[in-house]
Amino acid sequence: MDEFQFIQHYLVNKQTWPDTFLELGIGDDAAILRMNSEQALCISADMLQEGVHFFATDLPQDIAYKAVAVNFSDMAAMGVRPRWLLLTLALPVLEKVWLDAFFDSFYSLLEKYRVKLIGGDTTRGTCTISITVMGENGTKGGLRRDQAVVEDDIWVTGRVGLAAAALSHHYQQVHLSSEVFNLCEKARLRPPIRIEFMARAAPWIHAAQDISDGLLQDLEHILVASGVGARILVEEIPSLRELEEYTFYQHWLLNGGDDYECIFTASPIYRMQLEALAKELAVPLHLVGKITSTQGYSLFNKGRSISSFCKKGFNHFGNPIAPT
Amino acid sequence: MDEFQFIQHYLVNKQTWPDTFLELGIGDDAAILRMNSEQALCISADMLQEGVHFFATDLPQDIAYKAVAVNFSDMAAMGVRPRWLLLTLALPVLEKVWLDAFFDSFYSLLEKYRVKLIGGDTTRGTCTISITVMGENGTKGGLRRDQAVVEDDIWVTGRVGLAAAALSHHYQQVHLSSEVFNLCEKARLRPPIRIEFMARAAPWIHAAQDISDGLLQDLEHILVASGVGARILVEEIPSLRELEEYTFYQHWLLNGGDDYECIFTASPIYRMQLEALAKELAVPLHLVGKITSTQGYSLFNKGRSISSFCKKGFNHFGNPIAPT
Repeated sequence: MDEFQFIQHYLVNKQTWPDTFLELGIGDDAAILRMNSEQALCISADMLQEGVHFFATDLPQDIAYKAVAVNFSDMAAMGVRPRWLLLTLALPVLEKVWLDAFFDSFYSLLEKYRVKLIGGDTTRGTCTISITVMGENGTKGGLRRDQAVVEDDIWVTGRVGLAAAALSHHYQQVHLSSEVFNLCEKARLRPPIRIEFMARAAPWIHAAQDISDGLLQDLEHILVASGVGARILVEEIPSLRELEEYTFYQHWLLNGGDDYECIFTASPIYRMQLEALAKELAVPLHLVGKITSTQGYSLFNKGRSISSFCKKGFNHFGNPIAPT
Repeated sequence: MDEFQFIQHYLVNKQTWPDTFLELGIGDDAAILRMNSEQALCISADMLQEGVHFFATDLPQDIAYKAVAVNFSDMAAMGVRPRWLLLTLALPVLEKVWLDAFFDSFYSLLEKYRVKLIGGDTTRGTCTISITVMGENGTKGGLRRDQAVVEDDIWVTGRVGLAAAALSHHYQQVHLSSEVFNLCEKARLRPPIRIEFMARAAPWIHAAQDISDGLLQDLEHILVASGVGARILVEEIPSLRELEEYTFYQHWLLNGGDDYECIFTASPIYRMQLEALAKELAVPLHLVGKITSTQGYSLFNKGRSISSFCKKGFNHFGNPIAPT
């Protein structure tokens, strides 16, 4: 059983009674509780554990940053500004130097986005950080995966594949030059936060999703939910030029994961507005393809079809470790 | 540094900007977001990890029950019915038999209380369950710790000390007869849920708190927050008669923790109503003391002062493991 079979089997559509508050339930970047016509709460949760999402040797300030950024990424993908946060934290010891660095970084990021810590829990254990983040989005609710429209442009913020390349270096699958490694490592440890751009671009966006498990896999969530397909121009996907020489490049780019950028679709009539906003906020923004009526995705690289390249993105339980 | 020094130093009063939504922030059983005059959301989060909150050998159905019950306990202590829940889950493997048992139990309990799973995250890792639970409580907000009034009665639901006795047996500090052990083990694995009682009793209650870290320690939260003291009649605290013969009895009773019962204060004018409701719902309810104007607590056992007994309850980092 892999992660997505698990989600389908144990989490989706298990509780079907009507809930007048629940505008959007499990299966998107966040849930939406519609409190009334003028108030919608957007809520999501993510957990990070040492040895899985970060190394024991990563600095506490980077771990805190990443834990918050990963959660903010879900809000960005909803086009919602986060506002409140709950933190549950397991730590093997309470070590002041580590905690000072962790919480300085944690609060700096919360302060910057005016997000308030309102609750949580602390326990001894394997270093684990679970965050629930909430935003309030007025009449608007939030961006969903299931609203992509045929002929939509497909856009990607920032650059993808860098974090995956850094991990390949850590695992000694490749050796990156120190300059390239530093750039990739920064992308892994300090993923960019696209809240401002996505919140302001939301009125022009049809469907959105964050790229946490690999671009193709996350794009596929949009395609399946919207019942559409996509044509992707791989050479337009933004990454780092220096990575192109590596055998793993296409894998990092398309399936790497850990990017926390956003992929979204919008009508071509909003190209100018989107590009102007991206320029204003200095957010790299690339048009990487089109939504099509043929389901599934087809990939082209410099005019050549590479659609046979279909290996999937990150899956926490990709290898069935236990026989059942 | 212990858990409470940690909370004070890193979590309380770190973000002081005004928040018109936040009726009650960090430091109670749950936070309250006041959406408008007629809608208040009550939110809390708790994390459980294998080897800390449960044994690797505990059954998945019991682990699921406990993880939910521990979170419901915070809602009960707020006098609020839970309504939505987010689950972040780390598991070493996805093993169907384990998962089937876990989720059957999980959804049964959610179904019973009409609570909907609306989001979460799954990852590989040390078995860790973090739950965020939310309730909507209309005009009322929720019960707080800081509203105890001098001359209030102090009440305790259910029985305390049983889970701690079961743990002492597991750790071979004592040997309980199999009959007594089974009762205690059931209390540890399937803590009672007091939502219905507390939600209906809420109008008569001044201050409330769940007993998760030991009765005295949790009572002290009410006393400190309310600026009052308490006189406790230890022989009135409900436990299991068969445990009284053990040297550890008073420790289990007063400091044991892991009970998830509620302790609350109410004006004596509501005694009849509280007892009638407890009888109707078959909730054991005991009057164990009075709120006093003298700060701190004084303990009496069968007329004799035992106030020197002041060892504290459960503290996840009670022993400074790491020098700082």
